[in-house]
Amino acid sequence: MTIESERDKAGFWFEEDVLPGLKVKMELKEISFNGNSKFQQVQVIKTIFGKTLVTDGKTQSAESDEKIYHESLVVPAMLKHGSPKRVFIGGGGELATARECLRFPSVEEVVMVDIDEVVVNICKEHLPTWGDGCWDDPRLNLIIGDAYSNFENMDGQFDVVIMDISDPIEAGPGIALYTKEFYDMVASKLSPGGVFVTQSGSGDVHNYDDCMTAINRTCREVFDCVAPYTSSVPSFGGNWGFNMAWNLGEGEEGKEEIKKWKTCSDIEAKIQASSKHDYIFYDGETHLGMFNPAKQLRRGLEKEERVITRDNPVFMY
Amino acid sequence: MTIESERDKAGFWFEEDVLPGLKVKMELKEISFNGNSKFQQVQVIKTIFGKTLVTDGKTQSAESDEKIYHESLVVPAMLKHGSPKRVFIGGGGELATARECLRFPSVEEVVMVDIDEVVVNICKEHLPTWGDGCWDDPRLNLIIGDAYSNFENMDGQFDVVIMDISDPIEAGPGIALYTKEFYDMVASKLSPGGVFVTQSGSGDVHNYDDCMTAINRTCREVFDCVAPYTSSVPSFGGNWGFNMAWNLGEGEEGKEEIKKWKTCSDIEAKIQASSKHDYIFYDGETHLGMFNPAKQLRRGLEKEERVITRDNPVFMY
Amino acid sequence: MTIESERDKAGFWFEEDVLPGLKVKMELKEISFNGNSKFQQVQVIKTIFGKTLVTDGKTQSAESDEKIYHESLVVPAMLKHGSPKRVFIGGGGELATARECLRFPSVEEVVMVDIDEVVVNICKEHLPTWGDGCWDDPRLNLIIGDAYSNFENMDGQFDVVIMDISDPIEAGPGIALYTKEFYDMVASKLSPGGVFVTQSGSGDVHNYDDCMTAINRTCREVFDCVAPYTSSVPSFGGNWGFNMAWNLGEGEEGKEEIKKWKTCSDIEAKIQASSKHDYIFYDGETHLGMFNPAKQLRRGLEKEERVITRDNPVFMY
Amino acid sequence: MTIESERDKAGFWFEEDVLPGLKVKMELKEISFNGNSKFQQVQVIKTIFGKTLVTDGKTQSAESDEKIYHESLVVPAMLKHGSPKRVFIGGGGELATARECLRFPSVEEVVMVDIDEVVVNICKEHLPTWGDGCWDDPRLNLIIGDAYSNFENMDGQFDVVIMDISDPIEAGPGIALYTKEFYDMVASKLSPGGVFVTQSGSGDVHNYDDCMTAINRTCREVFDCVAPYTSSVPSFGGNWGFNMAWNLGEGEEGKEEIKKWKTCSDIEAKIQASSKHDYIFYDGETHLGMFNPAKQLRRGLEKEERVITRDNPVFMY
Repeated sequence: MTIESERDKAGFWFEEDVLPGLKVKMELKEISFNGNSKFQQVQVIKTIFGKTLVTDGKTQSAESDEKIYHESLVVPAMLKHGSPKRVFIGGGGELATARECLRFPSVEEVVMVDIDEVVVNICKEHLPTWGDGCWDDPRLNLIIGDAYSNFENMDGQFDVVIMDISDPIEAGPGIALYTKEFYDMVASKLSPGGVFVTQSGSGDVHNYDDCMTAINRTCREVFDCVAPYTSSVPSFGGNWGFNMAWNLGEGEEGKEEIKKWKTCSDIEAKIQASSKHDYIFYDGETHLGMFNPAKQLRRGLEKEERVITRDNPVFMY
Repeated sequence: MTIESERDKAGFWFEEDVLPGLKVKMELKEISFNGNSKFQQVQVIKTIFGKTLVTDGKTQSAESDEKIYHESLVVPAMLKHGSPKRVFIGGGGELATARECLRFPSVEEVVMVDIDEVVVNICKEHLPTWGDGCWDDPRLNLIIGDAYSNFENMDGQFDVVIMDISDPIEAGPGIALYTKEFYDMVASKLSPGGVFVTQSGSGDVHNYDDCMTAINRTCREVFDCVAPYTSSVPSFGGNWGFNMAWNLGEGEEGKEEIKKWKTCSDIEAKIQASSKHDYIFYDGETHLGMFNPAKQLRRGLEKEERVITRDNPVFMY
Repeated sequence: MTIESERDKAGFWFEEDVLPGLKVKMELKEISFNGNSKFQQVQVIKTIFGKTLVTDGKTQSAESDEKIYHESLVVPAMLKHGSPKRVFIGGGGELATARECLRFPSVEEVVMVDIDEVVVNICKEHLPTWGDGCWDDPRLNLIIGDAYSNFENMDGQFDVVIMDISDPIEAGPGIALYTKEFYDMVASKLSPGGVFVTQSGSGDVHNYDDCMTAINRTCREVFDCVAPYTSSVPSFGGNWGFNMAWNLGEGEEGKEEIKKWKTCSDIEAKIQASSKHDYIFYDGETHLGMFNPAKQLRRGLEKEERVITRDNPVFMY
Repeated sequence: MTIESERDKAGFWFEEDVLPGLKVKMELKEISFNGNSKFQQVQVIKTIFGKTLVTDGKTQSAESDEKIYHESLVVPAMLKHGSPKRVFIGGGGELATARECLRFPSVEEVVMVDIDEVVVNICKEHLPTWGDGCWDDPRLNLIIGDAYSNFENMDGQFDVVIMDISDPIEAGPGIALYTKEFYDMVASKLSPGGVFVTQSGSGDVHNYDDCMTAINRTCREVFDCVAPYTSSVPSFGGNWGFNMAWNLGEGEEGKEEIKKWKTCSDIEAKIQASSKHDYIFYDGETHLGMFNPAKQLRRGLEKEERVITRDNPVFMY
């Protein structure tokens, strides 16, 4: 044993704020890119979680668990619909959300609108496996611009609408995409049987009320059914929250439909009938774990009264 | 805005190692106790997670989520049995594990053996709500000593055996309590219908193979049925792992029994028939989330080949 | 060797901002006090530097080197005067500045004005050796209040005026005490042969221009002679800066007088003729080291053009 | 003000151990190189101190103050000699020590022996200004190898011998170069009037006894005169220590010679007579500051009893 072994060898660290008074500290193995776009600070680094995209000091996705996050975001909504043809993605600069959509042979067009060309290009260069196979897929319609106005001005309807944007932070570009006004527009552009899903910030018991419960409450103003769910994404610091929403078909009853979905036992069959992909993370048993969140979170969702509007936005730390 | 506001005000931090290259950093609001017992460094502090017991630099339980951990550890095994009369707890110095056991009116005796009297006394003084109501409960038989030899020399059988000890760290006092030899002894001292459960270290996708899968594999050498499960305990840095194990009754088939338990739909009824407690964390839907872990973890459990014995121990970071 | 030894045992840390992009991180052994006064956050902790007073996240003085700081601040000015009878201290809540003044038998009165009674009381309780012997010294006239207005309204003159206040931070209570207006008043209240000295922030080559050079430049507007000097105070993160100033007597020439002081060879004799104290830090050779600062600092002092006034304050990080 | 401004923007940090319980934490702006040589971990980064060479987690020299360190190490010894022709450098991989030697027109040969070719090449590529102008200087004789054996086997004598090697860490390559055995050999290879100087680790009041005082004590076993001195090198975390040693000429008396050097008033003239360089840091007044260290350090030097030999090495943290 040398004196060396008593020292902390890992001298380079990435410290990420999780909450006031809580940080995660990761050994920093590489800084591949460190710059600024018009919209945000953009960094590509390597940590214990592998290659990682960081914007404004927050991990966006990491090599070791980006599939957990992206499968969680995309696959349930796609399966819920069954045979989606046209999909809209707000954000999604890493192209991994598009990748998961394009796995479905039924898909004819994925419209993806991300505001930050720098992020898109940086991911293509530094995180090529994230969007592997998508760049040349003719079904991908990639637009650089504001998701809100592009979506507003788009003709036709969508089978699935997926919001893969940064958390709502004051003055952040995505704030309008977490409002009742936006969700009303989404509802009006969903085809019959259409499904909406949005990443919703942390789903951990100590901070689900940062924004997850408020996003859920806002969706409930607009949609008949809203199913909140979580997945454990270690590089995000714990459980991550999502909200999936849809309107009822004829003769359907909301509570019943949500319960059916939460305890759904034919997920494997649904996968075989659509993408046929052997997912890293998602399958029938994972589905039960995701859609049956802990009692505290459910109580927090029940108690939540905040409806997010342009005039009453919510902010995460 | 003053210059001050651009500085990081929280100058005091507790940095906890999670893995090599990964730490959690919590603002340190108080140091209530900072000392050493014969066995370990013992600290009681206050962070964003409230009052926290720390031994050897590792969070043992924290005010904000100790109930998640202790309900997860105790309640499923107690409900699985149905009407436990005699319970053994290895470790459990905070007395919160005993607290959860003593809520069950069927319980006549809780034998608890913790090696570290300093921890027990410190918790009584600094974390009084952890063991609230237990100190004077005549059903509690608290022994300071080595859990292994005390258990070995104890007469009679137990309905539930609960291991609430530190993670297996080389040379740590608890290492023998994670071996096949110990589990064989447990099996021999369980009454018919008896249930064994042990905390099993991290259940996160990036480190479940530190020890959770090996503990599971070892249990499978000894017990007919082993149900691994996880709960999200933020103060532990993410998902936490447990293994619950039991032997089959006549006419029962292992896979079937495990599946029944994983998708069990009458948890609420079981609670009403026994403790009748309104748990903070645990209920029927939480149960589904806990016992249906993600696909990666299940694959890791399947692939695991390590059987822990006295001659082949496993170590966590 | 155990696994333990590869971990960083010191889990509790005090992180102090030195500059943007530079922090010092000290193991935190105790938090003896953690509160707020009307004016500032006040903390007493224990680190590698021993018991330490921290206000607003900045180390004010530490057991291991408070004598270096306080001897550096007080003794040269007292010796320069020779036989001071009446001394004014602005700030100085720890009472260690008063302690150094009261060592001089010639001293008949020390008027000390500190704004923060909480700091004074906390130091008396938690740092008793700092002000050892001063509390009952009838020569000490301790006033809680604003140093500026108290000094302004005070009758009579002073032989030595010592400013031992926090660094100039925007909106901080001491900002007015670093202005030309204040120094003009000091000059008017110094007796013939009187000496002024002020702590002046960091004297390190990378940040002396935070405020040390500007304080020097401002003093030069008011006083005939200004001698900048530095001492290494490790708990402050490096070299610390001071400025000592005085007006010329008849027939004296400024540059000559400053040079005489910088290379003064009878410091030991001066000590023997006054305090007769065997200082921990200060003696003739230390004096040469202190008053002959490095070339970069001298060039920085020459180039400095900022004169601090009420209308043009300077701020440290 | 945005929420952003309350967060700590600098997410990337280099944490350097100074002592057990003391670290310096620098914002990490770039990682230009991160690898290992046969001998050590080698990193080139950018922090608040500019481009920085780090080996085994320790700052070796940084853009913002490497000149303070290298001028301190080289210039006094060169001036003490007066007109050095042949210089030996042990270590010095950045080539900045060679640069300072080669500024002296009297120098005919600089023999430099560094063990680590990777460091030398990395510095040439990433820190080109460190060795600016030296690479093609025909007077430089650069040898990759062990300084001890190369020096031992070298013919002829040297006017100045400079040790610019890593601190003595157990099992580190330089340990033998801090022993009485080595210094005996140096003394035997110095020409009449020859001067020896070695970097000596921290000179701060809280850790000069890590190794600075022991190196001084060991030199005193071998040389008639030893002058310890310090310079403030912020990127090293404070005051840095050096020991300069020489043997007496005829009719000279040790104490007198050392005192003459400490208070030497013709440094400017010596510079004009030799290198004629306008140094960033070093001049006559700087010289007085460097060679008149604080009383504590002088007392520590007096009390030191450790003589470093191969059988009794000393180790720094």
